[in-house]
Amino acid sequence: MNIHVIASVNEVRTEDVRGKTVIVIDVLRATSTMITALTRGCKEIYAVETVQQAKELHRPGALLGGERHCKRIPGFDLGNSPLEYEENYVEGKTIIITTTNGTRAIERSSGASDILIGSLLNARACAQKAAGLGREIVIVCSGTQDVFSLEDGLCAGLLVEELTAQAAGTGHKPQVNDFGLSMLYAYRQVQSRLVEALLNSSNGKRLASIGFRHDVEYCAQVNTINAAAIVREGKLELMK
Amino acid sequence: MNIHVIASVNEVRTEDVRGKTVIVIDVLRATSTMITALTRGCKEIYAVETVQQAKELHRPGALLGGERHCKRIPGFDLGNSPLEYEENYVEGKTIIITTTNGTRAIERSSGASDILIGSLLNARACAQKAAGLGREIVIVCSGTQDVFSLEDGLCAGLLVEELTAQAAGTGHKPQVNDFGLSMLYAYRQVQSRLVEALLNSSNGKRLASIGFRHDVEYCAQVNTINAAAIVREGKLELMK
Repeated sequence: MNIHVIASVNEVRTEDVRGKTVIVIDVLRATSTMITALTRGCKEIYAVETVQQAKELHRPGALLGGERHCKRIPGFDLGNSPLEYEENYVEGKTIIITTTNGTRAIERSSGASDILIGSLLNARACAQKAAGLGREIVIVCSGTQDVFSLEDGLCAGLLVEELTAQAAGTGHKPQVNDFGLSMLYAYRQVQSRLVEALLNSSNGKRLASIGFRHDVEYCAQVNTINAAAIVREGKLELMK
Repeated sequence: MNIHVIASVNEVRTEDVRGKTVIVIDVLRATSTMITALTRGCKEIYAVETVQQAKELHRPGALLGGERHCKRIPGFDLGNSPLEYEENYVEGKTIIITTTNGTRAIERSSGASDILIGSLLNARACAQKAAGLGREIVIVCSGTQDVFSLEDGLCAGLLVEELTAQAAGTGHKPQVNDFGLSMLYAYRQVQSRLVEALLNSSNGKRLASIGFRHDVEYCAQVNTINAAAIVREGKLELMK
Protein backbone atom coordinates (compact mmCIF):
# COMPACT_ATOMS: atom_id res chain seq x y z
CA MET A 1 0.00 0.00 0.00
CA ASN A 2 1.26 3.48 -0.88
CA ILE A 3 0.07 6.45 1.15
CA HIS A 4 0.53 9.91 -0.26
CA VAL A 5 -0.45 12.89 1.90
CA ILE A 6 -1.15 16.25 0.18
CA ALA A 7 -0.88 19.45 2.24
CA SER A 8 -3.72 21.51 0.76
CA VAL A 9 -6.45 21.52 -1.89
CA ASN A 10 -4.32 23.72 -4.06
CA GLU A 11 -1.77 20.94 -4.57
CA VAL A 12 -4.21 18.27 -5.74
CA ARG A 13 -3.53 17.36 -9.37
CA THR A 14 -5.81 15.07 -11.36
CA GLU A 15 -2.97 12.63 -12.04
CA ASP A 16 -2.28 12.32 -8.29
CA VAL A 17 -5.74 10.98 -7.55
CA ARG A 18 -6.72 9.04 -10.66
CA GLY A 19 -7.38 5.38 -9.86
CA LYS A 20 -6.72 5.95 -6.17
CA THR A 21 -8.78 6.00 -3.00
CA VAL A 22 -8.86 9.57 -1.72
CA ILE A 23 -9.57 10.52 1.88
CA VAL A 24 -10.54 14.18 2.23
CA ILE A 25 -9.94 15.82 5.60
CA ASP A 26 -11.40 19.09 6.87
CA VAL A 27 -11.33 18.62 10.64
CA LEU A 28 -12.52 22.15 11.47
CA ARG A 29 -15.21 21.54 10.57
CA ALA A 30 -16.71 20.20 7.33
CA THR A 31 -15.79 16.51 7.44
CA SER A 32 -16.32 16.31 11.22
CA THR A 33 -19.78 17.77 10.72
CA MET A 34 -20.61 15.47 7.79
CA ILE A 35 -19.70 12.24 9.56
CA THR A 36 -21.57 13.45 12.64
CA ALA A 37 -24.72 14.20 10.64
CA LEU A 38 -24.62 10.83 8.86
CA THR A 39 -24.21 8.84 12.07
CA ARG A 40 -27.09 10.78 13.58
CA GLY A 41 -29.35 9.42 10.90
CA CYS A 42 -29.14 11.93 8.09
CA LYS A 43 -29.90 10.00 4.87
CA GLU A 44 -27.39 11.62 2.51
CA ILE A 45 -25.36 14.77 2.03
CA TYR A 46 -24.79 16.72 -1.15
CA ALA A 47 -21.55 18.66 -0.77
CA VAL A 48 -21.33 21.58 -3.18
CA GLU A 49 -18.96 24.48 -3.70
CA THR A 50 -21.25 27.48 -3.97
CA VAL A 51 -24.26 28.87 -2.16
CA GLN A 52 -26.02 29.08 -5.53
CA GLN A 53 -25.46 25.37 -6.20
CA ALA A 54 -26.85 24.56 -2.75
CA LYS A 55 -29.99 26.58 -3.39
CA GLU A 56 -30.50 24.97 -6.80
CA LEU A 57 -30.35 21.48 -5.28
CA HIS A 58 -32.77 22.36 -2.51
CA ARG A 59 -36.09 20.49 -2.50
CA PRO A 60 -39.00 20.20 -0.04
CA GLY A 61 -37.98 18.38 3.13
CA ALA A 62 -34.25 18.82 2.56
CA LEU A 63 -32.05 20.93 4.80
CA LEU A 64 -29.54 23.54 3.72
CA GLY A 65 -26.30 23.68 5.70
CA GLY A 66 -22.96 25.40 5.50
CA GLU A 67 -20.85 28.40 6.32
CA ARG A 68 -18.98 31.34 4.93
CA HIS A 69 -16.30 32.88 7.14
CA CYS A 70 -17.17 30.29 9.84
CA LYS A 71 -20.78 31.49 10.10
CA ARG A 72 -24.17 30.13 8.99
CA ILE A 73 -25.26 31.33 5.56
CA PRO A 74 -28.34 33.62 5.75
CA GLY A 75 -31.52 31.67 5.08
CA PHE A 76 -29.89 28.28 5.64
CA ASP A 77 -31.24 25.77 8.19
CA LEU A 78 -27.85 24.84 9.60
CA GLY A 79 -24.37 26.26 9.88
CA ASN A 80 -21.16 24.20 9.92
CA SER A 81 -21.12 23.32 13.62
CA PRO A 82 -21.37 19.55 14.21
CA LEU A 83 -23.21 20.29 17.46
CA GLU A 84 -26.14 21.75 15.50
CA TYR A 85 -26.73 18.55 13.58
CA GLU A 86 -28.89 16.88 16.22
CA GLU A 87 -30.54 13.52 15.69
CA ASN A 88 -34.11 14.73 16.04
CA TYR A 89 -33.44 17.38 13.39
CA VAL A 90 -31.40 15.53 10.75
CA GLU A 91 -32.75 11.95 10.96
CA GLY A 92 -33.93 10.69 7.57
CA LYS A 93 -33.15 14.02 5.93
CA THR A 94 -31.23 14.95 2.83
CA ILE A 95 -28.79 17.74 3.61
CA ILE A 96 -27.20 20.02 1.04
CA ILE A 97 -24.05 21.49 2.50
CA THR A 98 -21.59 24.07 1.22
CA THR A 99 -18.41 24.89 3.08
CA THR A 100 -15.35 26.81 2.04
CA ASN A 101 -12.56 24.26 1.92
CA GLY A 102 -13.77 20.70 2.54
CA THR A 103 -16.26 20.83 -0.28
CA ARG A 104 -13.63 22.19 -2.67
CA ALA A 105 -11.32 19.32 -1.70
CA ILE A 106 -14.04 16.80 -2.56
CA GLU A 107 -14.66 18.52 -5.91
CA ARG A 108 -10.94 18.63 -6.73
CA SER A 109 -10.64 14.89 -6.01
CA SER A 110 -13.43 13.95 -8.38
CA GLY A 111 -11.09 11.95 -10.65
CA ALA A 112 -10.41 9.42 -7.88
CA SER A 113 -11.83 5.90 -7.89
CA ASP A 114 -13.41 6.52 -4.50
CA ILE A 115 -13.62 9.48 -2.15
CA LEU A 116 -14.04 8.96 1.57
CA ILE A 117 -14.16 11.68 4.17
CA GLY A 118 -11.88 11.55 7.18
CA SER A 119 -11.86 13.22 10.56
CA LEU A 120 -10.26 12.58 13.92
CA LEU A 121 -13.70 11.34 15.06
CA ASN A 122 -13.82 8.39 12.66
CA ALA A 123 -10.19 7.89 11.60
CA ARG A 124 -9.99 4.19 12.46
CA ALA A 125 -13.23 3.27 10.70
CA CYS A 126 -12.23 5.40 7.72
CA ALA A 127 -8.79 3.73 7.53
CA GLN A 128 -10.35 0.26 7.73
CA LYS A 129 -12.75 0.93 4.90
CA ALA A 130 -10.13 2.69 2.79
CA ALA A 131 -7.63 -0.15 3.22
CA GLY A 132 -10.37 -2.62 2.32
CA LEU A 133 -10.71 -1.04 -1.11
CA GLY A 134 -7.23 -2.32 -1.90
CA ARG A 135 -5.90 0.63 -3.85
CA GLU A 136 -3.23 3.25 -3.28
CA ILE A 137 -4.36 5.93 -0.89
CA VAL A 138 -4.15 9.70 -1.23
CA ILE A 139 -4.96 11.77 1.84
CA VAL A 140 -5.97 15.35 1.01
CA CYS A 141 -5.70 17.92 3.79
CA SER A 142 -8.20 20.58 2.77
CA GLY A 143 -6.37 23.43 4.45
CA THR A 144 -7.79 26.91 4.52
CA GLN A 145 -7.83 28.94 1.34
CA ASP A 146 -4.95 26.97 -0.11
CA VAL A 147 -2.84 27.19 3.04
CA PHE A 148 -1.97 24.13 5.16
CA SER A 149 -4.02 23.74 8.36
CA LEU A 150 -2.47 22.05 11.38
CA GLU A 151 -5.60 20.13 12.39
CA ASP A 152 -5.91 18.51 8.97
CA GLY A 153 -2.23 17.55 9.07
CA LEU A 154 -2.60 15.95 12.51
CA CYS A 155 -5.60 13.98 11.26
CA ALA A 156 -3.55 12.86 8.25
CA GLY A 157 -0.89 11.65 10.69
CA LEU A 158 -3.49 9.67 12.62
CA LEU A 159 -4.80 8.15 9.37
CA VAL A 160 -1.25 7.11 8.42
CA GLU A 161 -0.97 5.47 11.85
CA GLU A 162 -4.29 3.64 11.45
CA LEU A 163 -3.59 2.59 7.85
CA THR A 164 -0.18 1.29 8.89
CA ALA A 165 -1.84 -0.73 11.65
CA GLN A 166 -4.28 -2.13 9.07
CA ALA A 167 -1.44 -3.06 6.74
CA ALA A 168 0.53 -4.71 9.54
CA GLY A 169 -2.29 -7.24 9.82
CA THR A 170 -1.51 -8.33 6.25
CA GLY A 171 2.26 -8.35 6.76
CA HIS A 172 2.84 -5.22 4.64
CA LYS A 173 4.51 -1.95 5.54
CA PRO A 174 3.04 0.98 3.60
CA GLN A 175 5.28 3.37 1.69
CA VAL A 176 4.52 6.86 2.99
CA ASN A 177 5.70 10.09 1.33
CA ASP A 178 7.89 12.52 3.31
CA PHE A 179 5.03 14.87 4.06
CA GLY A 180 2.95 11.99 5.41
CA LEU A 181 5.84 10.86 7.62
CA SER A 182 6.22 14.35 9.08
CA MET A 183 2.48 14.46 9.85
CA LEU A 184 2.69 11.02 11.50
CA TYR A 185 5.51 12.28 13.74
CA ALA A 186 3.62 15.48 14.55
CA TYR A 187 0.48 13.54 15.45
CA ARG A 188 2.38 11.17 17.73
CA GLN A 189 3.96 14.12 19.52
CA VAL A 190 0.65 15.81 20.42
CA GLN A 191 -1.81 12.90 20.47
CA SER A 192 -2.25 13.09 24.24
CA ARG A 193 -3.21 16.78 24.08
CA LEU A 194 -5.10 17.24 20.85
CA VAL A 195 -7.58 19.76 22.21
CA GLU A 196 -4.71 22.05 23.19
CA ALA A 197 -2.99 21.53 19.83
CA LEU A 198 -6.17 22.29 17.88
CA LEU A 199 -6.90 25.36 19.99
CA ASN A 200 -3.37 26.52 19.16
CA SER A 201 -3.90 26.19 15.41
CA SER A 202 -4.90 29.12 13.27
CA ASN A 203 -8.46 27.83 12.68
CA GLY A 204 -8.84 26.70 16.28
CA LYS A 205 -7.93 30.16 17.55
CA ARG A 206 -10.32 31.82 15.12
CA LEU A 207 -13.23 29.50 15.97
CA ALA A 208 -12.67 29.85 19.73
CA SER A 209 -12.56 33.64 19.38
CA ILE A 210 -16.01 33.74 17.76
CA GLY A 211 -17.74 31.38 20.17
CA PHE A 212 -17.07 27.93 18.70
CA ARG A 213 -14.63 26.57 21.27
CA HIS A 214 -16.95 23.61 21.94
CA ASP A 215 -16.78 22.71 18.25
CA VAL A 216 -12.98 22.53 18.44
CA GLU A 217 -13.17 20.35 21.55
CA TYR A 218 -15.72 18.07 19.88
CA CYS A 219 -13.73 17.74 16.64
CA ALA A 220 -10.52 16.92 18.59
CA GLN A 221 -11.94 13.59 19.80
CA VAL A 222 -10.32 10.48 18.31
CA ASN A 223 -12.19 7.39 17.06
CA THR A 224 -15.46 8.15 18.81
CA ILE A 225 -17.45 7.38 15.64
CA ASN A 226 -17.26 3.88 14.21
CA ALA A 227 -18.45 4.66 10.70
CA ALA A 228 -17.05 5.76 7.35
CA ALA A 229 -18.65 7.84 4.63
CA ILE A 230 -18.12 7.70 0.89
CA VAL A 231 -19.13 9.83 -2.09
CA ARG A 232 -21.48 7.96 -4.44
CA GLU A 233 -23.23 9.56 -7.40
CA GLY A 234 -22.38 13.00 -6.18
CA LYS A 235 -23.63 12.52 -2.64
CA LEU A 236 -22.10 11.39 0.59
CA GLU A 237 -23.51 8.41 2.46
CA LEU A 238 -22.48 5.94 5.12
CA MET A 239 -20.32 3.10 3.79
CA LYS A 240 -21.77 -0.33 4.37
CA MET B 1 8.70 37.79 16.30
CA ASN B 2 6.74 36.02 13.58
CA ILE B 3 8.05 32.78 12.15
CA HIS B 4 6.67 31.56 8.86
CA VAL B 5 7.81 28.18 7.55
CA ILE B 6 7.44 27.42 3.82
CA ALA B 7 7.34 23.79 2.68
CA SER B 8 9.24 24.00 -0.61
CA VAL B 9 10.97 26.41 -3.00
CA ASN B 10 7.96 26.31 -5.25
CA GLU B 11 5.83 28.09 -2.66
CA VAL B 12 8.15 31.06 -2.08
CA ARG B 13 6.53 34.27 -3.29
CA THR B 14 8.39 37.57 -3.42
CA GLU B 15 5.88 39.24 -1.09
CA ASP B 16 6.45 36.50 1.52
CA VAL B 17 10.13 37.31 1.89
CA ARG B 18 10.37 41.06 1.25
CA GLY B 19 11.77 42.88 4.26
CA LYS B 20 12.22 39.63 6.18
CA THR B 21 15.12 37.52 7.33
CA VAL B 22 15.07 34.28 5.35
CA ILE B 23 16.72 31.06 6.49
CA VAL B 24 17.19 28.60 3.63
CA ILE B 25 17.43 24.92 4.53
CA ASP B 26 18.72 22.08 2.36
CA VAL B 27 19.89 19.55 4.91
CA LEU B 28 20.75 16.85 2.35
CA ARG B 29 23.10 18.32 1.46
CA ALA B 30 23.67 21.83 0.12
CA THR B 31 23.40 23.96 3.25
CA SER B 32 25.11 21.34 5.43
CA THR B 33 27.99 21.30 2.95
CA MET B 34 28.18 25.10 2.73
CA ILE B 35 28.37 25.70 6.48
CA THR B 36 30.91 22.88 6.77
CA ALA B 37 33.13 24.37 4.07
CA LEU B 38 32.98 27.86 5.61
CA THR B 39 33.89 26.65 9.08
CA ARG B 40 36.79 24.69 7.60
CA GLY B 41 38.25 27.94 6.38
CA CYS B 42 36.81 28.42 2.92
CA LYS B 43 36.79 32.19 2.31
CA GLU B 44 33.46 32.56 0.49
CA ILE B 45 30.95 30.60 -1.54
CA TYR B 46 29.13 31.65 -4.68
CA ALA B 47 25.91 29.65 -4.91
CA VAL B 48 24.52 29.56 -8.43
CA GLU B 49 21.69 27.76 -10.17
CA THR B 50 23.30 26.37 -13.30
CA VAL B 51 26.49 24.58 -14.24
CA GLN B 52 27.05 27.23 -16.90
CA GLN B 53 26.88 30.04 -14.32
CA ALA B 54 29.36 28.17 -12.14
CA LYS B 55 31.81 27.82 -15.03
CA GLU B 56 31.48 31.49 -15.95
CA LEU B 57 32.34 32.55 -12.39
CA HIS B 58 35.34 30.26 -12.21
CA ARG B 59 38.70 31.96 -11.85
CA PRO B 60 42.26 30.74 -11.09
CA GLY B 61 42.57 29.35 -7.57
CA ALA B 62 38.83 28.95 -7.07
CA LEU B 63 37.17 25.57 -6.67
CA LEU B 64 34.07 24.35 -8.47
CA GLY B 65 31.63 22.27 -6.43
CA GLY B 66 28.18 20.83 -6.78
CA GLU B 67 26.00 17.99 -7.92
CA ARG B 68 23.37 16.87 -10.36
CA HIS B 69 21.34 13.81 -9.39
CA CYS B 70 23.38 13.57 -6.16
CA LYS B 71 26.67 13.13 -8.06
CA ARG B 72 29.69 15.35 -8.72
CA ILE B 73 29.49 17.33 -11.97
CA PRO B 74 32.09 16.16 -14.53
CA GLY B 75 35.18 18.41 -14.45
CA PHE B 76 34.30 19.90 -11.05
CA ASP B 77 36.74 19.82 -8.12
CA LEU B 78 34.15 18.83 -5.53
CA GLY B 79 30.74 17.19 -5.34
CA ASN B 80 28.06 18.00 -2.78
CA SER B 81 29.31 15.77 0.03
CA PRO B 82 30.29 17.76 3.14
CA LEU B 83 32.92 15.14 3.89
CA GLU B 84 34.84 16.11 0.74
CA TYR B 85 35.27 19.70 1.86
CA GLU B 86 38.37 19.08 3.98
CA GLU B 87 40.25 21.88 5.68
CA ASN B 88 43.53 21.37 3.86
CA TYR B 89 41.69 21.57 0.56
CA VAL B 90 39.23 24.44 1.05
CA GLU B 91 41.07 26.78 3.44
CA GLY B 92 41.30 30.31 2.07
CA LYS B 93 39.58 29.30 -1.14
CA THR B 94 36.68 30.78 -3.04
CA ILE B 95 34.20 28.04 -3.94
CA ILE B 96 31.59 28.27 -6.65
CA ILE B 97 28.87 25.75 -5.95
CA THR B 98 25.77 24.71 -7.84
CA THR B 99 23.24 22.30 -6.40
CA THR B 100 19.76 21.41 -7.49
CA ASN B 101 17.49 22.70 -4.76
CA GLY B 102 19.32 24.69 -2.09
CA THR B 103 20.78 27.10 -4.60
CA ARG B 104 17.35 27.64 -6.18
CA ALA B 105 15.92 28.40 -2.75
CA ILE B 106 18.58 31.08 -2.19
CA GLU B 107 17.86 32.58 -5.61
CA ARG B 108 14.10 32.57 -5.02
CA SER B 109 14.60 34.39 -1.69
CA SER B 110 16.62 37.19 -3.23
CA GLY B 111 14.02 39.83 -2.29
CA ALA B 112 14.62 39.25 1.43
CA SER B 113 16.49 41.73 3.62
CA ASP B 114 18.92 39.00 4.63
CA ILE B 115 19.40 35.38 3.68
CA LEU B 116 21.06 32.96 6.09
CA ILE B 117 21.56 29.29 5.51
CA GLY B 118 20.37 26.76 8.05
CA SER B 119 21.18 23.14 8.77
CA LEU B 120 20.83 20.79 11.70
CA LEU B 121 24.59 21.21 12.21
CA ASN B 122 24.40 24.93 13.01
CA ALA B 123 20.73 25.50 13.92
CA ARG B 124 21.36 27.21 17.26
CA ALA B 125 23.97 29.62 15.93
CA CYS B 126 21.80 30.35 12.91
CA ALA B 127 18.77 31.04 15.13
CA GLN B 128 20.80 33.34 17.37
CA LYS B 129 22.07 35.41 14.47
CA ALA B 130 18.68 35.48 12.75
CA ALA B 131 16.89 36.58 15.92
CA GLY B 132 19.54 39.27 16.42
CA LEU B 133 18.57 40.88 13.12
CA GLY B 134 15.23 41.78 14.72
CA ARG B 135 12.97 41.15 11.78
CA GLU B 136 10.23 38.65 10.97
CA ILE B 137 11.64 35.31 9.97
CA VAL B 138 10.78 33.12 7.01
CA ILE B 139 12.20 29.60 6.96
CA VAL B 140 12.34 28.09 3.48
CA CYS B 141 12.57 24.31 3.23
CA SER B 142 14.22 23.75 -0.14
CA GLY B 143 12.58 20.40 -0.75
CA THR B 144 13.42 18.32 -3.78
CA GLN B 145 12.16 19.42 -7.16
CA ASP B 146 9.29 21.35 -5.62
CA VAL B 147 8.27 18.53 -3.29
CA PHE B 148 8.58 18.75 0.50
CA SER B 149 11.57 16.90 2.02
CA LEU B 150 11.31 15.47 5.52
CA GLU B 151 14.85 16.39 6.58
CA ASP B 152 14.31 20.06 5.73
CA GLY B 153 11.03 20.05 7.66
CA LEU B 154 12.69 18.54 10.72
CA CYS B 155 15.41 21.19 10.55
CA ALA B 156 12.72 23.87 10.29
CA GLY B 157 11.16 22.41 13.45
CA LEU B 158 14.50 22.60 15.25
CA LEU B 159 14.94 26.21 14.11
CA VAL B 160 11.47 27.08 15.44
CA GLU B 161 12.51 25.50 18.75
CA GLU B 162 15.79 27.46 18.86
CA LEU B 163 14.16 30.74 17.79
CA THR B 164 11.48 30.28 20.44
CA ALA B 165 14.20 29.75 23.04
CA GLN B 166 15.90 32.94 21.84
CA ALA B 167 12.64 34.89 22.08
CA ALA B 168 11.90 33.52 25.56
CA GLY B 169 15.00 35.37 26.75
CA THR B 170 13.33 38.61 25.75
CA GLY B 171 9.93 37.69 27.23
CA HIS B 172 8.27 37.21 23.84
CA LYS B 173 6.49 34.19 22.39
CA PRO B 174 6.83 33.97 18.61
CA GLN B 175 3.78 33.55 16.40
CA VAL B 176 4.39 30.46 14.28
CA ASN B 177 2.29 29.48 11.27
CA ASP B 178 0.48 26.12 11.27
CA PHE B 179 3.05 24.47 9.03
CA GLY B 180 5.85 25.61 11.34
CA LEU B 181 4.01 24.22 14.37
CA SER B 182 3.59 20.84 12.70
CA MET B 183 7.31 20.74 11.90
CA LEU B 184 8.14 21.67 15.51
CA TYR B 185 6.02 18.75 16.73
CA ALA B 186 7.55 16.38 14.18
CA TYR B 187 11.08 17.43 15.21
CA ARG B 188 10.37 16.92 18.90
CA GLN B 189 8.99 13.44 18.19
CA VAL B 190 12.14 12.18 16.42
CA GLN B 191 14.89 14.38 17.88
CA SER B 192 16.44 11.48 19.77
CA ARG B 193 16.73 9.38 16.60
CA LEU B 194 17.44 11.80 13.79
CA VAL B 195 19.83 9.55 11.90
CA GLU B 196 17.10 6.90 11.64
CA ALA B 197 14.51 9.52 10.63
CA LEU B 198 16.77 10.98 7.93
CA LEU B 199 17.66 7.53 6.62
CA ASN B 200 13.92 6.87 6.37
CA SER B 201 13.28 10.00 4.28
CA SER B 202 13.11 9.89 0.53
CA ASN B 203 16.46 11.69 0.04
CA GLY B 204 18.10 9.75 2.87
CA LYS B 205 17.14 6.45 1.28
CA ARG B 206 18.37 7.59 -2.12
CA LEU B 207 21.71 8.85 -0.79
CA ALA B 208 22.30 5.72 1.29
CA SER B 209 21.53 3.55 -1.74
CA ILE B 210 24.26 5.21 -3.84
CA GLY B 211 26.97 5.16 -1.19
CA PHE B 212 26.41 8.39 0.77
CA ARG B 213 25.11 6.94 4.05
CA HIS B 214 27.96 8.67 5.93
CA ASP B 215 26.78 12.02 4.54
CA VAL B 216 23.30 11.41 5.95
CA GLU B 217 24.77 10.50 9.35
CA TYR B 218 26.99 13.59 9.30
CA CYS B 219 24.15 15.95 8.31
CA ALA B 220 21.88 14.53 11.05
CA GLN B 221 24.09 15.95 13.81
CA VAL B 222 22.56 18.83 15.80
CA ASN B 223 24.39 22.01 16.83
CA THR B 224 27.89 20.70 16.24
CA ILE B 225 28.88 23.88 14.37
CA ASN B 226 28.78 27.17 16.23
CA ALA B 227 28.68 29.51 13.25
CA ALA B 228 26.16 31.12 10.92
CA ALA B 229 26.49 32.05 7.27
CA ILE B 230 24.86 34.90 5.38
CA VAL B 231 24.56 35.92 1.74
CA ARG B 232 26.29 39.25 1.05
CA GLU B 233 26.74 40.71 -2.41
CA GLY B 234 25.86 37.43 -4.03
CA LYS B 235 28.20 35.31 -1.99
CA LEU B 236 27.94 33.35 1.19
CA GLU B 237 30.30 34.06 4.08
CA LEU B 238 30.54 33.50 7.80
CA MET B 239 28.52 35.99 9.85
CA LYS B 240 30.57 37.98 12.32
